[in-house]
Amino acid sequence: MSELREEIMAANKRFMEAFKRGDPEAVAGAYTGGGRLLPPNSPQVEGPEGIREFWKQVMSLGIKSAELETLEVEGTGDGAWEQGRYTLRGAGGVMDVGKYMVIWKREGGQWKLHRDIWNSNQKAGG
Amino acid sequence: MSELREEIMAANKRFMEAFKRGDPEAVAGAYTGGGRLLPPNSPQVEGPEGIREFWKQVMSLGIKSAELETLEVEGTGDGAWEQGRYTLRGAGGVMDVGKYMVIWKREGGQWKLHRDIWNSNQKAGG
Repeated sequence: MSELREEIMAANKRFMEAFKRGDPEAVAGAYTGGGRLLPPNSPQVEGPEGIREFWKQVMSLGIKSAELETLEVEGTGDGAWEQGRYTLRGAGGVMDVGKYMVIWKREGGQWKLHRDIWNSNQKAGG
Repeated sequence: MSELREEIMAANKRFMEAFKRGDPEAVAGAYTGGGRLLPPNSPQVEGPEGIREFWKQVMSLGIKSAELETLEVEGTGDGAWEQGRYTLRGAGGVMDVGKYMVIWKREGGQWKLHRDIWNSNQKAGG
């Protein structure tokens, strides 16, 4: 496995752990200062405070974990893009499965999410 | 405006023109040979034939034009990423507005879409 892929997977692991602890502050800390979320059925969300509030809201909907599975990573110096697959779980089991793309930037020696977009594999309203 | 941004916008213009003509073959030709669509509420779609069939299906739903507005482009040699805003129109007006991210690759001297993911700004079922 490439070093870059390992580093991105390690950054995703920190994201997943913060999510599982129910710690929106730490989840938001995984993003760059100029980070941006592009969530489905929502306008885009910008900046650390907006990102923290977004994930706090998601956690309050009963989503207990967000599993991220890296399918593809390509690096470009201090940037990289990743395609992956996510699974959201609540107390009753799987709540959503879908795909995501992340633009990563190395900031202060650490890989951070810079752009984060995803959508569900499930039929709308399904 | 940077040369890269101009080139990506020109590639998007060709995409939009092909879409407006109702030409799914030409739309599919805007993607790399290993191109992949990540559409909302659907599994991913791979390869020229799958991509052509996907856009043919979209056109058959009465979508007459797909406007692409580039908000951000960052280049990485023979690769680039773009964030943008789309508007889908049918005979009766706007059918959907949303955001997209594209990973571009230069193939045979031409910028082609390599990964293409998007989602709606509108509430689900709204």
